[in-house]
Amino acid sequence: MEVKKYIGIDIGGTFIKGMIIDGLGKIIVEDSISTPRGNDELIHDLNELIEKMITNAKMAKNDFVGVGIGCPGIIDSENGVVVFSGNLGMNNFPLIKKAEKTIKLPVRITNDANAAALGESRFGAGKAYRNSVLVTLGTGVGSGIVIDNKLYEGGSSAGAELGHMVIKEGGLHCTCGRFGCFEAYSSATALRKRTLEVMKEHPDSKMWDTYSLESVCGKTAFDYKDKDPYAREVVDWYLLHLGTGVTNIANIFRPDVIMIGGGVSNQRENLTGPVQEHVDRCLIGGNKYAPVKVITASLGDRAGVIGAAALFID
Amino acid sequence: MEVKKYIGIDIGGTFIKGMIIDGLGKIIVEDSISTPRGNDELIHDLNELIEKMITNAKMAKNDFVGVGIGCPGIIDSENGVVVFSGNLGMNNFPLIKKAEKTIKLPVRITNDANAAALGESRFGAGKAYRNSVLVTLGTGVGSGIVIDNKLYEGGSSAGAELGHMVIKEGGLHCTCGRFGCFEAYSSATALRKRTLEVMKEHPDSKMWDTYSLESVCGKTAFDYKDKDPYAREVVDWYLLHLGTGVTNIANIFRPDVIMIGGGVSNQRENLTGPVQEHVDRCLIGGNKYAPVKVITASLGDRAGVIGAAALFID
Repeated sequence: MEVKKYIGIDIGGTFIKGMIIDGLGKIIVEDSISTPRGNDELIHDLNELIEKMITNAKMAKNDFVGVGIGCPGIIDSENGVVVFSGNLGMNNFPLIKKAEKTIKLPVRITNDANAAALGESRFGAGKAYRNSVLVTLGTGVGSGIVIDNKLYEGGSSAGAELGHMVIKEGGLHCTCGRFGCFEAYSSATALRKRTLEVMKEHPDSKMWDTYSLESVCGKTAFDYKDKDPYAREVVDWYLLHLGTGVTNIANIFRPDVIMIGGGVSNQRENLTGPVQEHVDRCLIGGNKYAPVKVITASLGDRAGVIGAAALFID
Repeated sequence: MEVKKYIGIDIGGTFIKGMIIDGLGKIIVEDSISTPRGNDELIHDLNELIEKMITNAKMAKNDFVGVGIGCPGIIDSENGVVVFSGNLGMNNFPLIKKAEKTIKLPVRITNDANAAALGESRFGAGKAYRNSVLVTLGTGVGSGIVIDNKLYEGGSSAGAELGHMVIKEGGLHCTCGRFGCFEAYSSATALRKRTLEVMKEHPDSKMWDTYSLESVCGKTAFDYKDKDPYAREVVDWYLLHLGTGVTNIANIFRPDVIMIGGGVSNQRENLTGPVQEHVDRCLIGGNKYAPVKVITASLGDRAGVIGAAALFID
């Protein structure tokens, strides 16, 4: 019996990652290239990357069902159009049509955060659960929702923007223009910024022992949380808002599991423990019926590209 | 050709409403009784109400596909169990099993807010749209979500609790125990409370001309918004928070339409106009692609009972 293989592509602002997996999520080949400028160049380079991976895997095009692509921005996945992507400088770009013509395989696309959620749901931390949400704490707060094992992208595939849920009306200014978004409090960027503020306010903070204005990052406050009250203050601030956002998600979707990904999730139980407590305390009707588990995502940076490939796995 | 009819029941803390409709949502008979104390009494009285409606409609039990029930609280709709309902004093009550035994027709249940959303989606303001959300501004903030013409109740049918999404971390205390819930700002109760506070602070407010401490209600501030700066302040406060909550919903579900129901929605365009502006301004990626309309619900108090009946309409 011939077993079909799947190609996933994750288009980022800097790199394009590619991967070939089997139907169980096993990685056969992976590769990456720099993201070129220009849409025609993108399609050309994408095709080269795919041809190269197929050759390296010692396979042929007809071993593949299709190519799944994760792409930043607002994506019309049904019609295969990148409606808007600031990162890629695309406006109403018919990515599927262009890509299928060159690549000569069926292509599907979704938003990159949605792809990551599908990846974690199929082959990562969420694989035992039918209903899951992935919250990725990175430069921003990415999110993707899986309902009954299927990606839920919102109407016209333009929803699922949990990072831009306002959790504090009138609060911190978000890159989207609103004030008080979940992302403005819970991204790694927000954590770093808050740490920096507190360090500047407190020249006696122990965080200065090993971190400078330049090296401060999302790890700094967590490193010092048990040694420095100022670090503890930052961590508590961060966990409060993360807990609020995650609990909102729990009450809206009541998924089996909320997975935390992105750089900050390396804190593992230091992060998921307090957030789980917050959820358990504030779940509507209590947490005995339909509890919501908070866990760490497991695929790291590969979630998006694996999930993109999974767009063709039923 | 024989045309099937449908029975809907809406169980409230004070009244039980019943209705017989046809497959197009036309009301054939409606009736109501007081909600009795005790679960056995409830089943008994429910059966009497149903028998009486069937008699009044000059029909027989086999004219009906089943009885749909909307019920307040956390409902396990798959297994037909009222997990918890404070209003009805129920804990893990197997409503479907008990009701089917007595009524001798198939029974389905859902949360009352979900039933209302299904009603508005099938036969009310949302009938032209596949994806809709109903937000009911009453004693609390009820909500129900329809995705691809089907009710979305969240995992284990315990989600869709949009009223308990925190929109202002550390804000007003909500009945659920959290601080800053959408409900704590946008219910009719919250509007009345805020109006009362502002009136007490300002004995010179024109709102005192026709309202007293006892008669102040969700209409008061809207009545005076063009004549009294204090009333305007209350209305602006209310619209800001309502707009924030509704915009969150728009970015999460990106539905075709968000319907506003409940007593406060009698303000119609005074309410939907400013909220629509808020949504248009803050929709991720702009409002050209997949715009979200904000409209007034149309079925009023009957949405729940009609939607309950619709649980049996494919």
